Amino acid sequence: MMKVSDEMFTKVLVANRGEIAVQIIRALHDMQISAVAVYSQADRESLFVKLADEAVCIGGPQPADSYLNMTQIISTAKLLGCQAIHPGYGFLSENATFARLCQQCQITFIGPNADLIDLMGDKAHARAAMQANQVPVIPGSDGVLDSADQAVQIAQKIGYPVLLKSAAGGGGKGIREVQTAAELPAAFEQVQQEAKLSYGDAAVYLEKCIGQAKHIEMQVIADNFGEVVYLPERDCSLQRHHQKVIEESPCGMIDAKQRQWLGQTVARATRKLGYTNTGTFEFLMDQDHHFYFIEMNTRLQVEHTITEAVTGIELVKAQIRVAANQPLGFTQADVKLNGYAIECRLNAEDPQHQFAPCPGKITALYLPAGSLGVRIDSGVIAGSVISPYYDAMIAKLIVSSQQRTTALAKMDRILSEMQIEGIKTNRQFLRQLLTQRAVQAGMFTTTFIAEMRQKGDEADVTSEVQNAQSEEP
Amino acid sequence: MMKVSDEMFTKVLVANRGEIAVQIIRALHDMQISAVAVYSQADRESLFVKLADEAVCIGGPQPADSYLNMTQIISTAKLLGCQAIHPGYGFLSENATFARLCQQCQITFIGPNADLIDLMGDKAHARAAMQANQVPVIPGSDGVLDSADQAVQIAQKIGYPVLLKSAAGGGGKGIREVQTAAELPAAFEQVQQEAKLSYGDAAVYLEKCIGQAKHIEMQVIADNFGEVVYLPERDCSLQRHHQKVIEESPCGMIDAKQRQWLGQTVARATRKLGYTNTGTFEFLMDQDHHFYFIEMNTRLQVEHTITEAVTGIELVKAQIRVAANQPLGFTQADVKLNGYAIECRLNAEDPQHQFAPCPGKITALYLPAGSLGVRIDSGVIAGSVISPYYDAMIAKLIVSSQQRTTALAKMDRILSEMQIEGIKTNRQFLRQLLTQRAVQAGMFTTTFIAEMRQKGDEADVTSEVQNAQSEEP
Repeated sequence: MMKVSDEMFTKVLVANRGEIAVQIIRALHDMQISAVAVYSQADRESLFVKLADEAVCIGGPQPADSYLNMTQIISTAKLLGCQAIHPGYGFLSENATFARLCQQCQITFIGPNADLIDLMGDKAHARAAMQANQVPVIPGSDGVLDSADQAVQIAQKIGYPVLLKSAAGGGGKGIREVQTAAELPAAFEQVQQEAKLSYGDAAVYLEKCIGQAKHIEMQVIADNFGEVVYLPERDCSLQRHHQKVIEESPCGMIDAKQRQWLGQTVARATRKLGYTNTGTFEFLMDQDHHFYFIEMNTRLQVEHTITEAVTGIELVKAQIRVAANQPLGFTQADVKLNGYAIECRLNAEDPQHQFAPCPGKITALYLPAGSLGVRIDSGVIAGSVISPYYDAMIAKLIVSSQQRTTALAKMDRILSEMQIEGIKTNRQFLRQLLTQRAVQAGMFTTTFIAEMRQKGDEADVTSEVQNAQSEEP
Repeated sequence: MMKVSDEMFTKVLVANRGEIAVQIIRALHDMQISAVAVYSQADRESLFVKLADEAVCIGGPQPADSYLNMTQIISTAKLLGCQAIHPGYGFLSENATFARLCQQCQITFIGPNADLIDLMGDKAHARAAMQANQVPVIPGSDGVLDSADQAVQIAQKIGYPVLLKSAAGGGGKGIREVQTAAELPAAFEQVQQEAKLSYGDAAVYLEKCIGQAKHIEMQVIADNFGEVVYLPERDCSLQRHHQKVIEESPCGMIDAKQRQWLGQTVARATRKLGYTNTGTFEFLMDQDHHFYFIEMNTRLQVEHTITEAVTGIELVKAQIRVAANQPLGFTQADVKLNGYAIECRLNAEDPQHQFAPCPGKITALYLPAGSLGVRIDSGVIAGSVISPYYDAMIAKLIVSSQQRTTALAKMDRILSEMQIEGIKTNRQFLRQLLTQRAVQAGMFTTTFIAEMRQKGDEADVTSEVQNAQSEEP
């Protein structure tokens, strides 16, 4: 999206909350740009509100009343003289309507073009666009299915099991795995109905089911002057309920040659699509190292921090520069992969009860930032309240080091040092996860956490940890 | 110092307090080694006491009763089964008697050989040792002066102004600058008397006075197997009352060729001296880029953090490995200079009153760690007391980035974001210092702070800062 003038912004509105609002405000301040926060009634005492140069309460705690309230956000930006809006992740960050509304109001939306947000928001269209640009996709239907018969024909060709998916879907709803041709017609109808009910759109497509795969993603950043740069891949396979828990970069199973091939593939597609600002191509990688495009995220991602750690590139600042129609300022040759980084998402949740969110007041807090390669991004301080209205993330713990083993040891040490009182967290679960042999070896797929929990390995793991600590190294 | 066995330690005593005790405990924990803290009655509630696996109160708040109480520390180490003692910086870290006592008690002192600590502790001997190993020293007397007459002869040869210095001295006492031959005899007698009074040793030597110089230092680390590695130089010229305030690495005025020459010079001397573990060669660099050895610190330094930031090498861990008679694990070729780092020492002090320490209770504290390249090392938490018995440092703020300008902007942002209530600090003074044109340009010498304060530039600077913030960038 082109800005009216090419001068750097002097004031930017941050349309988000929590740790990412804090990060965006910090980036703006580093660039000598004023930061305006908008906040809901639930966030009055939040750190990001305190750090902003101006802060405006825009509504009640329900997201629809505040962080999703487009007209309220845009009119605040206009009233306070902001030239741009950074949407962060979640909320309005992938909302094409909002991006268009910004454009109409002469405010720069810090992100890609609204049409490309739309394109990538529709999974069937995104898949077709990738195929057209030589990005490998999961074998399946070319777009939406006409009938159950067509589904059976395609499944026959690509082999079972297959997945039936709602084109408008996301987040696990409107997806069904089918093992045989006999099951397929009934499943097709069910997914159609579910899709219509959940998303108001009965369109369904079909994909081969990729078993035992890693979730590998690659971030790109592109400016308005034709510069497109890809960044080292992230392995985000450690997920629970389709949500990432631990991310790392690079992936130990991908070598330099494969990294370059994947990078050049996504960079070429980015260029052909005319995509600018940051975006992330998500893939499944099967055991033969074949890549299959899943979706593209047209925004900053939670885990951009590990990419920053291994490249030294500050992505939020790069987003702002690109949105202000300035050149990116670096080329592919400047991107050097330096060491290894890992991120743990510390959440207010109960791993013993299906990771149910555990909102509440943090009565005491000590986050042990303060050693080489340790970064703790958080929007909370002692006394902060984890609200039931929003994501239950307390902090992102990011560790980088020349060696993966050193980073893992340091992450465990940080998790053991930190103190959080007043709420339940997944701290102990993260420690257990990090000590699993498969995690130590980097050999895990997207189903690892579910399998580990099914096997009830956690109890064993706890005693393993204790033994490890009492033994001499 | 050779250890009895070559296995890694399982338990180490930390003979220090505050932030450096915290850092050493963290390094030990990362290496799966138990950490024992010893603390004075004043430090009962300190963070380092909480983080240690075991903690023993060894005496009253006066350093002589606790952190300098050698027998108490060593017997605690023996009683608790520690194989080694890390002395940190200050206190017993450069005490050869303590290092020898450790050796006699079969405890590894994590540092160099006691004889080398002794050698470098005597400035005249250290100077002679450097000369013998082709390290450039300040022109002056070869060792201690016999008489005032001899002083006049030498001064005639090297040119005035000259400095008369107590051989046993340090920290500014027993030093006199002499401008002419006429002043010299009286000054010689005065320094002799002062030296005898202060240090019980009347030995005096003479050096040329190096004006308008930078304080440049270079750290080495060497193992027991002949591996000697030098690390990129640090510019520690920003000092007040001979104490470092802001340090940076690398120095923008030193190019790769000069860095290599200086590095090879100190590495050769290190090898010839048989020096192991970490050490720092301190130099003055005059405006023609001539280097003059000042002294060698035979311990970890406060500012080792910026070296860690630009090299990725963890120095405390390297010290522990070397002391355990393990190979260093890297060579000179592995040391890559990556980007730029700066450290500010945040102290509880009053810049308006000669930087007088301002002990007291920290009633509220927010240290804004949590963005790329930001590390805040601190031994305090909200509620901690800055004790009148010890150093008044609250935290070390370390920022690294690919560009020096980015790091400076980020440091200013951190200083503006942080909140400390209950005590006076040098926060605003640090901000003023960072905005000085000479500091922005990297063009400053060891007298910069004194000159700035004499000129009363601070008031101007304050308004400059305010203007800069209200202007559009």
